[in-house]
Amino acid sequence: MTADKADDIVTAAFLVIGDEILSGRTKDKNIGFLADYLTALGIDLSEVRIVPDVQAEIVGAVNALRTKYTYVFTSGGIGPTHDDITAEAVAAAFDVPLNLDPRAVAIMEKHYPPGQFTPARQRMARIPEGADLIENKVSKAPGFRIGNVHVMAGVPAIMQAMMDAVAPTLQTGKKMLSETVAANMPESRIAERLAAIQDAHPETLIGSYPKATDGKFTTQIVIRSRDETILAAAAQDVARAVDDLSG
Amino acid sequence: MTADKADDIVTAAFLVIGDEILSGRTKDKNIGFLADYLTALGIDLSEVRIVPDVQAEIVGAVNALRTKYTYVFTSGGIGPTHDDITAEAVAAAFDVPLNLDPRAVAIMEKHYPPGQFTPARQRMARIPEGADLIENKVSKAPGFRIGNVHVMAGVPAIMQAMMDAVAPTLQTGKKMLSETVAANMPESRIAERLAAIQDAHPETLIGSYPKATDGKFTTQIVIRSRDETILAAAAQDVARAVDDLSG
Repeated sequence: MTADKADDIVTAAFLVIGDEILSGRTKDKNIGFLADYLTALGIDLSEVRIVPDVQAEIVGAVNALRTKYTYVFTSGGIGPTHDDITAEAVAAAFDVPLNLDPRAVAIMEKHYPPGQFTPARQRMARIPEGADLIENKVSKAPGFRIGNVHVMAGVPAIMQAMMDAVAPTLQTGKKMLSETVAANMPESRIAERLAAIQDAHPETLIGSYPKATDGKFTTQIVIRSRDETILAAAAQDVARAVDDLSG
Repeated sequence: MTADKADDIVTAAFLVIGDEILSGRTKDKNIGFLADYLTALGIDLSEVRIVPDVQAEIVGAVNALRTKYTYVFTSGGIGPTHDDITAEAVAAAFDVPLNLDPRAVAIMEKHYPPGQFTPARQRMARIPEGADLIENKVSKAPGFRIGNVHVMAGVPAIMQAMMDAVAPTLQTGKKMLSETVAANMPESRIAERLAAIQDAHPETLIGSYPKATDGKFTTQIVIRSRDETILAAAAQDVARAVDDLSG
C-alpha cells in the first residue's frame, strides 16, 4: 500500500453501552446501521465493542479505542435515569469535569413546558467540559463530541438522527468498493482458486461467505478494493473460477 | 456482595470475527442468540467484541478476554477459505502449534465421498495442539475448545448447534432473574423515583429502557436479581412508583 493510499483510510470503532444488550433483553439494531452508514461514507468500521453500564468498563473501552482509530462512536447511556452513566464515564476517560452545559440547558428549556425541565431531565444537560453538542432532532437532549469520540443515544431513531448531524463533520476516506459473485457450491470447492486469486490481487480483499439454506451450502464471494480497475480485474477472475467449477 | 454469592457468578465474553460484519454486508445474528442462551444458562455475558479477519486483532482480543472472563466464545473464520484465519490466530494466542488433528480428520474423512476430502477441506481439520473438539452436527467440520476459549463457526445454524454441544460442559452460575414493569410515560418522569428505589435495593440492577413509538416515548423498567425475594420487593416498589405517576 503506497503512502497516498494510506492517507485515504479513515477508521472508526463503535462502542455500544448497555446491560440490556448483553442480557439479550434488547437486540441491538445500531451495529448493522452504523456499519452500513460508515461504509457508505468511506469510513472503515474496524472494531465494535459492547460493554455494560459500568464506569470502569466504559472508561477502559473509550480510552483503548480513541487512541487506536480515527473516530469512536458510542450509543447508549445518555438518558435521564440513574443507570445512564455514559457522560460521567466519558468525562472520566478524558479527565475533564462534567457540569450542566448552558447550551444544552438552553435547548432543553425551550423544548419543555414551563416547570417540566425537571432535575432528571437536567441530568441530560450535563456535558463534559470542552465538548461540542450533537443535535438531537427527535427528542432534543443532545449528544456530544469530545476529541474524536462521538457520544450518541441508544434508541435507534435518535442515534440515526444524531449520525445525520455528525456525518457532515467527519473526514471521509476513499470509498471501499465491492462486487459480489454468487457461487452455487460449498466454499470448499472454490477455496484453492480463491486463495490463488487473492495472491494475484494483493490490493483487494476477497471474502468468502457460506450460506446454509435448507441444509444446502452456497457461497457469496465478495471482492473489495478502493480502486475500480483493480476491483474489476479480480472480480472477473473470481467469476471465471466460479464458471469453471460450476455444473 | 458476599463471598458465596461471588462464587455463583460465571462470566463470558463473545468475540465475533469477520470483515463482513464490520462492513455491514452481513448483519450479525449470533450476538442476540448467545446473549439469550447464556442468560438462560445462568452465565453473564459481560462483553462483546467484533474484530476483522486480521491475525493481530484476533490474537489481541482473545488474550484480553480469556484472562478477564470465565469463558470466551468466538464465531467466524473457521471455514475452508484463505480468509478463515481464526484457528491460526487462536493457536498463536495460546502459543501452541496448529496441525492436522487426527480426530478431526477421522470425522471429516467419513463425511465426504472418497476423494472429496480435499486440501481446502483439510484446512478445517487443523486444530491447535491441546484443544478438544466441538461437535458440528450440521456440516461435520468441528469447532474446538482450548483453555476457556470456545471456537465456533459463524453461520448461525452451525454456531447454534455447536453451542448445544458446548452447553453441557459449562459451569453455570445462579440464574439472573428479571421482572419487567411497563410505564406509559417518558423515563424522565420516573427517573428520580427509580434512582431512590435502586438505592434502597442495592442487590438489584434496575434498568430503564425508553422506546420511541410514533414519536411518543414509553419506558420499560427491568429489575434484575439472582434472589427471588429481593427481586419481588424491588419490582413491587417500581410498580407502585409507576402507579403513582400514571394518569
